[in-house]
Order: sequence, then C-alpha cells, then structure tokens
Amino acid sequence: MAQNIRTIKVALGDRSYPILIGSGVRRGFGALLKKHGSGRAFWITDRNVARLWGEDLKPLWKESPAPPIILPPGEGQKRLRVVEDLCRRLTAAGAERGDTLIALGGGVIGDLVGFTAACYLRGIAFVQVPTTLLAMVDSSVGGKTGVDLPEGKNLVGAFHQPRFVLADLDFLSTLPRRELISGLAEVVKTALIGDPALFRLIEKHLDQLTAVNSELMAQAVEACVSFKASVVSSDERESDQRRILNFGHTIGHALEALGGYDKLRHGEAIIWGMLAAVELSANLNLLNRETADRIRTLLNRFSPGLPAIDFQPVDVLDIVSRDKKVRRGAVHFILLGDIGQPIICDAVNSKGLKSVLEKLRQLMKNSPSKSR
Amino acid sequence: MAQNIRTIKVALGDRSYPILIGSGVRRGFGALLKKHGSGRAFWITDRNVARLWGEDLKPLWKESPAPPIILPPGEGQKRLRVVEDLCRRLTAAGAERGDTLIALGGGVIGDLVGFTAACYLRGIAFVQVPTTLLAMVDSSVGGKTGVDLPEGKNLVGAFHQPRFVLADLDFLSTLPRRELISGLAEVVKTALIGDPALFRLIEKHLDQLTAVNSELMAQAVEACVSFKASVVSSDERESDQRRILNFGHTIGHALEALGGYDKLRHGEAIIWGMLAAVELSANLNLLNRETADRIRTLLNRFSPGLPAIDFQPVDVLDIVSRDKKVRRGAVHFILLGDIGQPIICDAVNSKGLKSVLEKLRQLMKNSPSKSR
Repeated sequence: MAQNIRTIKVALGDRSYPILIGSGVRRGFGALLKKHGSGRAFWITDRNVARLWGEDLKPLWKESPAPPIILPPGEGQKRLRVVEDLCRRLTAAGAERGDTLIALGGGVIGDLVGFTAACYLRGIAFVQVPTTLLAMVDSSVGGKTGVDLPEGKNLVGAFHQPRFVLADLDFLSTLPRRELISGLAEVVKTALIGDPALFRLIEKHLDQLTAVNSELMAQAVEACVSFKASVVSSDERESDQRRILNFGHTIGHALEALGGYDKLRHGEAIIWGMLAAVELSANLNLLNRETADRIRTLLNRFSPGLPAIDFQPVDVLDIVSRDKKVRRGAVHFILLGDIGQPIICDAVNSKGLKSVLEKLRQLMKNSPSKSR
Repeated sequence: MAQNIRTIKVALGDRSYPILIGSGVRRGFGALLKKHGSGRAFWITDRNVARLWGEDLKPLWKESPAPPIILPPGEGQKRLRVVEDLCRRLTAAGAERGDTLIALGGGVIGDLVGFTAACYLRGIAFVQVPTTLLAMVDSSVGGKTGVDLPEGKNLVGAFHQPRFVLADLDFLSTLPRRELISGLAEVVKTALIGDPALFRLIEKHLDQLTAVNSELMAQAVEACVSFKASVVSSDERESDQRRILNFGHTIGHALEALGGYDKLRHGEAIIWGMLAAVELSANLNLLNRETADRIRTLLNRFSPGLPAIDFQPVDVLDIVSRDKKVRRGAVHFILLGDIGQPIICDAVNSKGLKSVLEKLRQLMKNSPSKSR
C-alpha cells in the first residue's frame, strides 16, 4: 500500500464517499471495492491509458469477470451512441445491478462512464480512477456526469456520485504537458475562488508543479479536492453556491466550442476565460488593479505554448446566451472581489462583455502559439 | 374544471406529488403547472394522440413557448437516439433548467419523455399526462423512466418522479380495444397482488369496464393508483417490496421480447405471464386449486381476441436468466398465496418452470387468435 495517503471525505449523507490521494493508492483498489463498492468491477478506459498503464494494472483487471472495455480517446466519445454501445457491451458481459463500473481515465472517461453507470439498469455503482490532473482536481469530484450534444457540451447527463475516488499521482508521470497545464488551470481557478494560500503556493512553485513534484502536487490536489468537496457537500445540485466553480467557464466553454473542442483543451480555454473574467471584474471595479495585475501575471506564465484561436466576440455572446447556466435570459457570471472571493453577478451588460472579448481576441492574436 | 376529481398523493418526501383522476382533469393543467411544476411547459406527444386530441388541447398548447414535439407512435421510439433527438430539439426551442416537459401519451411517451427530462441539462421537471389505461394505472406512477436496448426493454433509464400526473378518463374514449384490454390486465394484476375488493369489482363488472363506464373506471383507476402509490412510497427504488409489482412480468416480458415487441402488447403478454405465475403458484402448493381456478376463469375472459405467439420454453428461460431482476444468477418470481397475497420466491427450479411454460405454449397454440 502507498505511503502518505491523504483521504478527503465528500459529505453527502448516505451518498458520502472518500477520495484517496497519493502515489500508489491504486494498489488498494480491491480492498476499497469491497468496503465501499458493490459486487464485481467492470473497468472502462481509453486506448492511451490502456497502452501506458495496462501492464501495471493487469493484477487489478484479473479480478474482474470481463476484460476492460477500451474506447478510443477524445471528447468525441462523450455521445449517447457511445453510452448505448457501452450498455450493450455491459449487458453482453453480464454486468448486473449490484456491480460497479470503474472509470479509469481523464474527464471524458469519467463523465461518460459516470453517466453510463447512472442510467445502466436505471443506475449502478461506479468508481472514479482519474488519470489526469484535471480529472483529479475537478471532474472526478462532485458527481456531475454527462455527454455532449452537437449544440454543446454536457447538455445531457445526471448527478451520480461515485462510491470512491482513487487519485493516484503516479498516473501524472505519463501525462502530456498540455494536459498537465490544463489541470493546473483548474488548480489556479480553485485558488482564485477560494484558497489564497494555494494561490501563493502556485506563485512560488509553479515550475515544480509543472515538473510534477510529487509532494507539492499532493498538496495542490488535496487543497483543490477539499475545496470542491466542501462546495459540493453544501450544494450538490448547483442551485447556488456550486456555481462559483464555474469561474472562467462561461467564456471558457464558449471558446472551447468555437475551437471545435479540439483546438483548445478544457483547461486551456479556462485560462483564457479566467483572463476575461479578471478583466471584467476589474472593469466593474469589483477587483482592484493591483490584484488584477497579480492574477494576470500568474496566468500569463502559462502563455508560452498555450494554444489560442481566432474568434468573433459576437459568436461567444451567442453561445453564452444559449449556455445552460442561463436562467430566463439572465447570464450569470462568476467574478472576483479579491483572490479567494468569488461574486455571482448577473449585472454584466453585453456591451461591457463585448469590449472584454475584443481585448481577449487581440491578446490571443498576439499569443506566440496561435493555432492556425 | 372537472367534477368528481379524485386526488392521490404519492408520498416521497420533497419529491411527493399528486395524481388527479377524473373526466376533464386536463382542463386544470395551467393551474397545476403553476402550483407544482416549474417555468414553461414543453409538450411531447405522438402522432396518434395529436391527431385525436390536438384540437381539444389547442388552448393548453397555446400557452407554451413552442409547438408540441410530435413523435411517431410505437415502442421503436424508446431508444437513446430518440432521446438525443429530443434533447437537440429542446435545445433549439430554448428549453431551460427551470422548465417542465409534458409527457402526453401512453407508456412509451411517458418512459421516453420521463427519461429525457431526467437527463436533459442533468435533469428538469416533468409531468405525466397518460392517455392510455395502462399508463394511468401503471407506468405513469412510480418514477421509473427509460429506453430500450436491442438486448431488452428498459435496460437504460432513471428514477425520476413527475411533478404531477393528470389521469383524464376522457382520453380512454378513443383508446383501441386492444390497448384497453392491455390496461385492464394491469388492473387485474393490482387486484391479485393487493386488492381483493378490486378483484371482486372486476369479476362483477368486467363488461362495463371494457365499455369504459366512467364511474367504475374511476374506481378501478383510483384503486390501482392508490395501491401503486403506497408501494412506491415505501420502496422507491425497487430494492424489495416494489418487486411485487412485477407479478406476471418475468415471463410476460420474455414473451413480449420473443414476439419482437409488436405481436403482443405489454398487457397482453402480462395476461399470459399471470396465467403462468398462477400455474406455478398452484404447482408449488402456495395457492389452492379453487382460488387458482377462480383467477384463471377471470383471466380466460380476456382470451377472445387475445393475441398469442408460438415460442420455445428454452428461449423464455434464456431471457428470464438475463432479465435485470436477476441478482447473481437467482431468478426471483412473484407468486401468489391467495388473491391479494404476493410471495417473492427464488426457489423456482428450471424444471418446474419449463413444464409450466410447455403448458402455456399449448394454451397459446389452442388460443382462438394465435398470431401467425
């Protein structure tokens, strides 16, 4: 068993579950399945993870009644036709109501397998084994699962909590740099909306984090997971407080969509989205210039190598107004009053938004690695 | 507003909801939406209902922000590709998190729209307006929603409770006879598993029920809804007591599947399934011969015109063992100790089952309206 295991509990009554963080925690899988899971494990992963970690995970897979289902990688898998395909394969493999699905992979696998577990036989148990930093700090915590429509991401889904989450930092050793940056973007987001100490840690140690220093990474992941767990515990279904987690996401999601979901990774889009949200916060005099500059300085350290796209501000406005966070026409933005002080704001007019988007567009145009 | 409205409450904590039964209750829709629903109503129905009732319902549809979505009729619609299509059309129509889907139709529409509501934007409100007797007494109560896989019915779905149910008996006036019989089969089922008084009412008044006598029908629907509501309230997720509702369904579902879901209506298959379950109960000496005969006599009154299929007992056994009610290989049958006394039994061996199926096969072969 691994040393220095950090355990965070997500408190949700009879759906509470633990998140285990540390190098090597995957080796405790069998015991955890017995304690928190149900029945037999049916693993689902993608080709990249299977190629990189299949040999290492063989002992765990051997305990299953069926070989792991291995999907092609990529966001393109998050569709209802893939959910149908998975359900048919699970039926063929004999997966029953009392069994457990294991989502081994990044956010795509977590969202897709979580939603499959939510609706297969009207709901069976599942476990998250995130292999990317983004999935560890964000998508594997909170029970949001879902798939995409051509009209937008995550428009179909369910709230379905896992039985436990295994965040094994060893998986990060094989993570491509772009994926790591994408995850660090969510770490920065957490710092900005709720954890000034984490912000200082990133400012001080960004280079070591980028080089996957295990101890610092464990601290960062723990901070993010703890924060998200506390938000989720107090507001499981995003009626209010949970919305602060969408800081940088309203514009970020729109940019992601305009890039066809392949030019920008989720976290990359969120970095641009956070830059816009900081700008907006400063323009509305919610955030003082000095703090805005300090945040921009940190975000700009991600710029070298950060993909950018060309876009029309009006297209972003279009998507934002269609966004599922819209309630009767009012767009809610998450802005900042200070580092660690999010503000839910519905007073953003489209003129102010447009000028911020125009500035963001110029910023992206001048970015060293604009996508062609 | 209609007279003689019967209201049954399904007690499920903060997901409790009322079921209104009576002629003309549809006219109270607007007020109920305001009281129990959420936002604006998006109606979804099928071509048959739209053709028969579109003119009558125009005043209600006019209040909606979009025209009703009208699907082709039939079980073939209960697939994930249709869920995707519905979600895309709802996105285009601007349906938001705070709005309500209205399922106007039989069990297919109720299951499909209910599941769509369960996963569109991770879950929005919905209302059941059942137009068939089967949907009124069975599928619209209890929150089970779902779609089919090629491998079997309802293998993908969710538990999602409606905000209210409007069981308007006027809709039964345009119901084809086969559909009516199909619904009466579930009424008989309810009588057998929990309501001896209802059994006597059916014995005495089957002809008037078949002719849709409004007062007797209201009594029968109320009895069924009350019974199902009480079972569902005490066991929302079918972990135990709710399983008694599956009386006649284990074999019934298998026959339905073997008929390709078009030769036998659900209720028709359940009549055959109940005959088998009664036979099984008598063979195991759980039910005395006299009572078994009395039940058979009533069930046989449905025989004229009742479609039958030819089947191999072994094929039924195959499907039964794959049924989602299977838990680790043990098939649970719902049997009878008396009228109103269901028994959950997992001691049915396949030899005894096979001989009952062989007898059922002969019975169907000699049926006057065997399907060719």
